[in-house]
Amino acid sequence: MTKGYAALASDGDLELFDVPRRDLRPDDVSIDILYCGVCHSDLHEARNDWGFSNYPMVPGHEIVGRVQSVGSGVTSFKPGDLVGVGCYVDSCRECRPCEIGEESYCENWPTATYGSVDRHDGMPTYGGYSKHIVVSDKFVLRVPASLDLKSAGPLLCAGITTYAPLRHWKVGPEHKVAVAGLGGLGHLALKFAKAMGAEVTLFTRSPDKAEEARRLGADHIVISTDEAQMAATANAFDFVIDTIPSAHDLNPYITSLRLDGKLILLGMLEPIDPPLHGGLLMLGRKAVVSSNVGGIRETQDMLDFCAEHGITCDVEMIAMQDINVAFERLRRGDVHYRFVIDMATLGEK
Amino acid sequence: MTKGYAALASDGDLELFDVPRRDLRPDDVSIDILYCGVCHSDLHEARNDWGFSNYPMVPGHEIVGRVQSVGSGVTSFKPGDLVGVGCYVDSCRECRPCEIGEESYCENWPTATYGSVDRHDGMPTYGGYSKHIVVSDKFVLRVPASLDLKSAGPLLCAGITTYAPLRHWKVGPEHKVAVAGLGGLGHLALKFAKAMGAEVTLFTRSPDKAEEARRLGADHIVISTDEAQMAATANAFDFVIDTIPSAHDLNPYITSLRLDGKLILLGMLEPIDPPLHGGLLMLGRKAVVSSNVGGIRETQDMLDFCAEHGITCDVEMIAMQDINVAFERLRRGDVHYRFVIDMATLGEK
Ligand SMILES: [Zn+2]
Ligand SMILES: [Zn+2]
Ligand SMILES: [Zn+2]
Ligand SMILES: [Zn+2]
Repeated sequence: MTKGYAALASDGDLELFDVPRRDLRPDDVSIDILYCGVCHSDLHEARNDWGFSNYPMVPGHEIVGRVQSVGSGVTSFKPGDLVGVGCYVDSCRECRPCEIGEESYCENWPTATYGSVDRHDGMPTYGGYSKHIVVSDKFVLRVPASLDLKSAGPLLCAGITTYAPLRHWKVGPEHKVAVAGLGGLGHLALKFAKAMGAEVTLFTRSPDKAEEARRLGADHIVISTDEAQMAATANAFDFVIDTIPSAHDLNPYITSLRLDGKLILLGMLEPIDPPLHGGLLMLGRKAVVSSNVGGIRETQDMLDFCAEHGITCDVEMIAMQDINVAFERLRRGDVHYRFVIDMATLGEK
Repeated sequence: MTKGYAALASDGDLELFDVPRRDLRPDDVSIDILYCGVCHSDLHEARNDWGFSNYPMVPGHEIVGRVQSVGSGVTSFKPGDLVGVGCYVDSCRECRPCEIGEESYCENWPTATYGSVDRHDGMPTYGGYSKHIVVSDKFVLRVPASLDLKSAGPLLCAGITTYAPLRHWKVGPEHKVAVAGLGGLGHLALKFAKAMGAEVTLFTRSPDKAEEARRLGADHIVISTDEAQMAATANAFDFVIDTIPSAHDLNPYITSLRLDGKLILLGMLEPIDPPLHGGLLMLGRKAVVSSNVGGIRETQDMLDFCAEHGITCDVEMIAMQDINVAFERLRRGDVHYRFVIDMATLGEK
């Protein structure tokens, strides 16, 4: 049992909650949580926006902490190690995606860090808005010592969500990459694409975001409401990383792609409306693609890449007790670029 | 001047028409047309379904013929050679796609075989429903001697439309490929995918197409209206080649793709309605892609591949005078699988 914050129903505030944690199985790592990022999906899940939430729910899948103890079979972690836990804590480990290290695409559904059910004891999984968590060693990430701990958590969801497609599609110095939307995902997409050597453009509706975008890595800014600027982007980009979370027209971004360009859809994971125009794809052999967070191996690569290139998430620290205010601000889009909960504010375990 | 059939307006029948043909420029090849396939887009263009048709219009971009004479600078063709002409007869030859041999994606719009304007003399282009055509050597294909001439024409549009994405995405024996729709494109997609070594499935609403599909190369048939059969296709395919030309729901086909699967959209080149679900792409790192016909080099590869593997289009021969009846049958989908006009029926030039 550990302290945490839980949603008890879809319409209530999060409140203090005693979180059950299992006794260590041989492959388990017991982690004292230092920080936990606040993801948009935490808000959606707590509010049951997707219709499959279970309560009580302890959100949080951007977890950074320190190993407290390990199960009898664990050899890769020891007490004191700095570690992270992201969106998944288990998978079937047998299907084709699992076999090739793409656990997030497990065909038998990976076990989510919260709101899911443990594959072995059938107990609910509870996330990182708590002092402590127990996770199978296979799903524990190593946090490089040079990474700032406060801002590392969001890399485990927002970070790997943007890093994974850039790696999958082999983005490099020969590419022109545009990013649409400058939120949690977008600001990391700018940083990653820049660090991978691409020439980077931000699509934004707000001219006043230009300076900020350049600081984050953008070489160019295109004001998406400016028809002349948009027309000038025809055939310009190899990739558009679309992180805009609300309904919007994808077709202008597809037009901005050159031959073989890919629109990487990360924000609007719902029916695409207004509709996508098939002919626009045909005329440039273009693709609309999407992806989930990467697997464990790729998530570790991403953390190491961040350490090497000095990439962090820009965060605003909050106390656990302020989570309901933070949720409300998140709902309004009022965050630059991620809230992170300092678990010390929950007091002793 | 040569004989041909033209649409003089969007609402009239095609009728006999004197087709102007230019005097040979140094790079031109003058071709006596033997056969010309009847493409769905011929019907759409003649009827001005896409709103940009010009009249008089001589349709036809699936042309097979024999070289009659060549311009002073032509070295790669000589009188008597069997040749073909597909969807395009020129391009800017300077842009990036043109430079890499992807003329169909010319950023300055390739010159269509009919309904377009010649880049040099500004005259309208007239297509293959005629006895004779003049085309720059760069856009003339060599028809292998072993190919059946009557059925080779449709390879230059329907053939390369299906061959190009299979090659681009490197389809081979390690892949499971499904084809949706069994028309001009679909029946060639079955043949190509099978010849490339893939395990091939046909999605169809009609159980009575099973025997025919197996003859064309399908290893399996899935009745797309059968819920149990559709459910069993989850995570099954690396590629779905969707050739269905009318509005339909793509989402069940996306569900049938495995990790990294691609839906290759060749039929519905309009706004995608019902809408595509972004989340379905995300959960399997899937892609919706499309493509135009291949460039000249790839079209030649395709013809050579067909000769090597004995692939032809299944055709029904018609007389030029019966084109209006054929158009009406085409409109109803009553063709297996392509009409081809025997130009000898037009009489002497
Ligand atoms: Zn998240
Ligand atoms: Zn699995
Ligand atoms: Zn065609
Ligand atoms: Zn060009």
